[in-house]
Amino acid sequence: MASTAEPGEGIRLEELQLATRNRGMPLEGLRYDVTPIGMHYLLVHFDIPDVDADSWRLRIGGLVERPLELSLADLRRRPARTLPVTMECAGNGRARLDPRPLSQPWLVEAVGTATWTGTPLAGILADAGVRPDAVELVFTGADRGTQGDIEQDYQRSLTVAQATAPEVLLAYEMNGRPLEPQHGFPVRLLVPGWYGMTSVKWLTAIEAVAAPFEGYQQIEAYTFRESDDDPGQPVTRMRVRALMIPPGIPDFYTRVRSLDPGPTTLRGRAWGGFAPIVRVEVGIDGVWAEATLGPPLGEHAWRSWTYDWLAPPGEHTLSCRATDADGTTQPTVPAWNVKGLANNLVQDVAVTVRA
Amino acid sequence: MASTAEPGEGIRLEELQLATRNRGMPLEGLRYDVTPIGMHYLLVHFDIPDVDADSWRLRIGGLVERPLELSLADLRRRPARTLPVTMECAGNGRARLDPRPLSQPWLVEAVGTATWTGTPLAGILADAGVRPDAVELVFTGADRGTQGDIEQDYQRSLTVAQATAPEVLLAYEMNGRPLEPQHGFPVRLLVPGWYGMTSVKWLTAIEAVAAPFEGYQQIEAYTFRESDDDPGQPVTRMRVRALMIPPGIPDFYTRVRSLDPGPTTLRGRAWGGFAPIVRVEVGIDGVWAEATLGPPLGEHAWRSWTYDWLAPPGEHTLSCRATDADGTTQPTVPAWNVKGLANNLVQDVAVTVRA
Repeated sequence: MASTAEPGEGIRLEELQLATRNRGMPLEGLRYDVTPIGMHYLLVHFDIPDVDADSWRLRIGGLVERPLELSLADLRRRPARTLPVTMECAGNGRARLDPRPLSQPWLVEAVGTATWTGTPLAGILADAGVRPDAVELVFTGADRGTQGDIEQDYQRSLTVAQATAPEVLLAYEMNGRPLEPQHGFPVRLLVPGWYGMTSVKWLTAIEAVAAPFEGYQQIEAYTFRESDDDPGQPVTRMRVRALMIPPGIPDFYTRVRSLDPGPTTLRGRAWGGFAPIVRVEVGIDGVWAEATLGPPLGEHAWRSWTYDWLAPPGEHTLSCRATDADGTTQPTVPAWNVKGLANNLVQDVAVTVRA
Repeated sequence: MASTAEPGEGIRLEELQLATRNRGMPLEGLRYDVTPIGMHYLLVHFDIPDVDADSWRLRIGGLVERPLELSLADLRRRPARTLPVTMECAGNGRARLDPRPLSQPWLVEAVGTATWTGTPLAGILADAGVRPDAVELVFTGADRGTQGDIEQDYQRSLTVAQATAPEVLLAYEMNGRPLEPQHGFPVRLLVPGWYGMTSVKWLTAIEAVAAPFEGYQQIEAYTFRESDDDPGQPVTRMRVRALMIPPGIPDFYTRVRSLDPGPTTLRGRAWGGFAPIVRVEVGIDGVWAEATLGPPLGEHAWRSWTYDWLAPPGEHTLSCRATDADGTTQPTVPAWNVKGLANNLVQDVAVTVRA
């Protein structure tokens, strides 16, 4: 199978099948500090498994002194932490690449922010006693399928240092309610700042291992590669990105926006997993100006921004781009890679301002 | 703009933009009697509006004796009724038509069942006193945009007799919770048995009128037409349809299923808006056999079914089709129409049974 579409080729049936199962956040959802559960983006690799909460157990084993088997009630009795966390799919932006890698065809909308509640993983790992010869922890989900011709449970790993960061949770509530099935019921890993593939849903096992994990999702699916034989670099944290609520009203089919001339406030959110957002700029037909940042919601959540625009009649292209405290900003030319990952190309919104 | 894709043309950017905003129910969601809120299908014509529940009012006017203006609290004080209702998008199946009408490109997954709570519309209309010269009620939503070159609030109508059926609700809860924004917060119309376009979300006004409503969504968008100059027939109730939970495990990209040989139980749901489901058949490579119906969930909700299959090794195509009490069943050749509506073509699921 070719791994990319032909030049100019429309979306294939296989891509559409994924797009109708998975779901982005409609961009007007950027108005909410915390995304309603049913508006949060969702990417499911295989099927949403049917997990019985009463018989569900999380097994912590491998290179640990004291293997554990924990029920949902056991996890809920442990210290709880609640965090607003912005999560984005690593494939966000894939369908804007040329040639287009064949997978879930996201444009820009694979993001959301939820208030997650769970117990810190570090405490559980301390109770289990991770042995000094363990270098990574492998997280296994209950979802099973075939990818890259390999039948597999969904699995990802973190180093011991990454896994014991204080913000890493075993999460059992989203926006104050038990997880819905599609978001990992009864318990998922939550790794703030990282792309969503890291936050393994429907968690069943955590295994401490002596060598870096080489599973499909770790060394094949989520790596930056320039060609098929490039071993590549792992995808980790979310690249810096800003998105705008498209202003005015839409055309149903084209989604082109119409609005009245005069003062209008453009609004959006910006986030990134490497460093705090320090700047958002708005582009009006390619001329950039500073937006105003709103108050932070939390260390791992998106930041709101506004920009007052005096809209003149005519056709315009509105853009936005974020910059983080490391000085990293968004590209205007996308960085292509084989799997179509982490394309944080600047968003453009076409608007017609009425005469 | 051409209204259909070219022969063999892939999905266009405009269609993809709709597919990433709107969302189907992953078919494994058929396992739930009541669909979790975040898994229910969603089709939004324009944008999800930002409605303030405190200042929101529903105005009932036009040809009524006593115009009303009701708050959310007013509606909640009225008699409440809770109903499990299966809702399907009228465009479900559109992307399986050839040539493909250009709009939201659903395959088969635009369906869900929720437990809706609201107050019967009939009581409100009785309080308002619909005058004898009124023939229809026009329902207006808060979502606004352009479609067919017409700027419009989303509007649909029902005859007085249709609107006063006892199961028609002004719904303010879904699965026991206030509506999420994308499902019509604070109040939506709910018309069980009809395709979803009838159940106007973000309801702001109900107007009794003396002549059949001729708005875009009523006489243009949702009509069965064989050509652009055919005035067409209105789309009303849901056509009979069965869907199957794809058995086994999926391939990530192709969604082709793998399973072990031997006994397996195929499961799914069937529904229709004209008459109760009386029969579901399962096709194994084109040979049809009777499935077993589960207990009814309610007059307006889907019906579960099962079929025990002794899966032999090899490649197979599994199908299902429902028949209602009127004797209507699903076609194996789709009925094409200009807008790509109500295509209840039999579902096929490709499976590989391992040797």
